[in-house]
Amino acid sequence: MAANQQLGMRIKDLREARDWSQRECADFLGVHHVYLADVELGKRNLTLANIEKIAAGFGVTLEELFKGL
Amino acid sequence: MAANQQLGMRIKDLREARDWSQRECADFLGVHHVYLADVELGKRNLTLANIEKIAAGFGVTLEELFKGL
Repeated sequence: MAANQQLGMRIKDLREARDWSQRECADFLGVHHVYLADVELGKRNLTLANIEKIAAGFGVTLEELFKGL
Repeated sequence: MAANQQLGMRIKDLREARDWSQRECADFLGVHHVYLADVELGKRNLTLANIEKIAAGFGVTLEELFKGL
């Protein structure tokens, strides 16, 4: 499975672990909720700057975000 | 320091640990050597697809590539 799909699933897990809806999470991360939905489905080829922003929003390091990937 | 700069330094370390020149490494990874030079200097906002390609080329996981970041 491509890294973008695996990362999308990881981001969804992190969001759901916080009981956030996609809209709440998108607002908190400062991204559009449609973008977040696409990311979770693995439909976006994220840039490292956006990955860094998402990791910071969830309060995890990049190493933690990519754990097991 | 931004993630792209930190990752660039990590990629340079991985290349130098293998005694590869930038040109040898770029050829091996299937990227242009100027692109690789920019990446090592933190001047590119890498996409996850390219990060995945670089990690695979060095034979490391994404978690290993981002160790400590």
